[in-house]
Amino acid sequence: MNDAARAEEFRRRLDAAAEATEAALDALLAPAALPGEVTRPARLLDAMRYASLGGGKRLRPFLVIESARLFDVTGESALRAACALEMIHCYSLAHDDLPAMDDDDLRRGRPTTHKAFDEATAILAGDGLLTYAFDVIADSATHADAGVRAALVLALARAAGLGGMVGGQALDLEAETAATPLTLDETLRMQAMKTGALLRFAVDAGAILGGAAANQARALTRYGEALGAAFQIADDILDAEGDTAALGKRAGKDADRGKATLVGLLGLDAARARRDALVEEATAALRETGLGEATAILAEAARFVAARRN
Amino acid sequence: MNDAARAEEFRRRLDAAAEATEAALDALLAPAALPGEVTRPARLLDAMRYASLGGGKRLRPFLVIESARLFDVTGESALRAACALEMIHCYSLAHDDLPAMDDDDLRRGRPTTHKAFDEATAILAGDGLLTYAFDVIADSATHADAGVRAALVLALARAAGLGGMVGGQALDLEAETAATPLTLDETLRMQAMKTGALLRFAVDAGAILGGAAANQARALTRYGEALGAAFQIADDILDAEGDTAALGKRAGKDADRGKATLVGLLGLDAARARRDALVEEATAALRETGLGEATAILAEAARFVAARRN
Repeated sequence: MNDAARAEEFRRRLDAAAEATEAALDALLAPAALPGEVTRPARLLDAMRYASLGGGKRLRPFLVIESARLFDVTGESALRAACALEMIHCYSLAHDDLPAMDDDDLRRGRPTTHKAFDEATAILAGDGLLTYAFDVIADSATHADAGVRAALVLALARAAGLGGMVGGQALDLEAETAATPLTLDETLRMQAMKTGALLRFAVDAGAILGGAAANQARALTRYGEALGAAFQIADDILDAEGDTAALGKRAGKDADRGKATLVGLLGLDAARARRDALVEEATAALRETGLGEATAILAEAARFVAARRN
Repeated sequence: MNDAARAEEFRRRLDAAAEATEAALDALLAPAALPGEVTRPARLLDAMRYASLGGGKRLRPFLVIESARLFDVTGESALRAACALEMIHCYSLAHDDLPAMDDDDLRRGRPTTHKAFDEATAILAGDGLLTYAFDVIADSATHADAGVRAALVLALARAAGLGGMVGGQALDLEAETAATPLTLDETLRMQAMKTGALLRFAVDAGAILGGAAANQARALTRYGEALGAAFQIADDILDAEGDTAALGKRAGKDADRGKATLVGLLGLDAARARRDALVEEATAALRETGLGEATAILAEAARFVAARRN
């Protein structure tokens, strides 16, 4: 495949993953109660649907689906793990947007969940999505082998929790009001937790679902870490130079707020160089899997993440 | 055993469960990061410890431990499941106390988590505890059989989520501002979700850990449901007649706020009669397990829950 054909195939698979994820989330968030549930309250369900449906590139689900495909895992297994991860991502957006946190009114060009509903409902919708993610993974529909399901639950909980995403958000908020700004090392660690951990989980999930060999799993983890870091630098660059219309959220808000960003610490040019080096690192890690041309789509994903305009 | 000896043995085991849970939670919430975690941010960890350590009767952990003991499951397995459930309970208190929700300043005689820290940290500490609960269960330290771990994750997620505790809290908040008050049936369903689902899970967890026969598991579930309903009526009665000092939180606040309570719907006398009937129902369900005298402590727990003064 030449570069243009690969880029086109990537877009096609990204769109297909988004469509499949949307349909699967829609089905999971249906009104009918599951065994062990009493009933699904309509307004809370609406808020959970609002917070998770109808938006986003679905990059994380795409990464789960494509990394699982490397090990011939397709269909329901990969899609359910993808949905669980996306629920975690969407809950974190609903909570991060709250007045007590980042206080955002706009997300993907729409009112944030607490604006469309109310604060209490946004908190509960987030709690509901976070909880449901583990329900979806633990259900036998996700994988016949309970060992795989338990390993996915454990990896997702570690990526999303105190030592991962939630911890990263806490460090980010603390830095806003701290007397001294975060150092480069501290910023990198905070970002590896806040956005990196879930992106790394996405590719780890594929390896867990597919029973990857240890060396392949390690190489994929390195790919996920480099991709996550590239994603975050690209985000900082976009925030510094972007415009609100393209982003669907207010541009320049991180810098205004004195948030730690790599553009602030390194300057735009060095940030861009670092981003490009991370794409190289991600691609090199894919080569180490020994899976050859099958990883071309994931390499394209790393380039896409670095070059994205929103 | 006579009644007095049984009551004494119950208190002894309740205290022992509380002590073991406190020590285990303390160890789980240590500063050292686990594999898959980057680092554990100190202030967030402090808030998670504040929200979960040093308080409460630990009724849910006790129920996990004692129901597991019926099937000869003791030690680490039962204790870790107990801790996971208590983390869910404690996260829900931290979130429910938030200004956007019940807006409480006091809990167990101490400032609530958002008062002791700040709102953002209380939200994140809750998210962190909720996430960590699933980490604790999914870890192989909880049970050698991954099928048991996955079943526990699934049951806990269903009890705690949209169709359980979180959904019940949403219904309760909605009822405060609704044009028409909840009917008796709606109130019972809301309470079965808000407080009942986690109490039911506590005893279901014992049956799952111990591989109980289906008829024993069903009888225990009925016990858990009756106990949960008795617990909630006792709570409503306490709120109606209690005093703030004994409760460690403001008395009469549910009634003031127009919350749906069974005392409001039935009157005090009928509420007390219903509570006593539920204790009978709980005790009858225990007899149906066929486990005989081994269930005496759980029967005592039902009486305790109904008679408690705080």
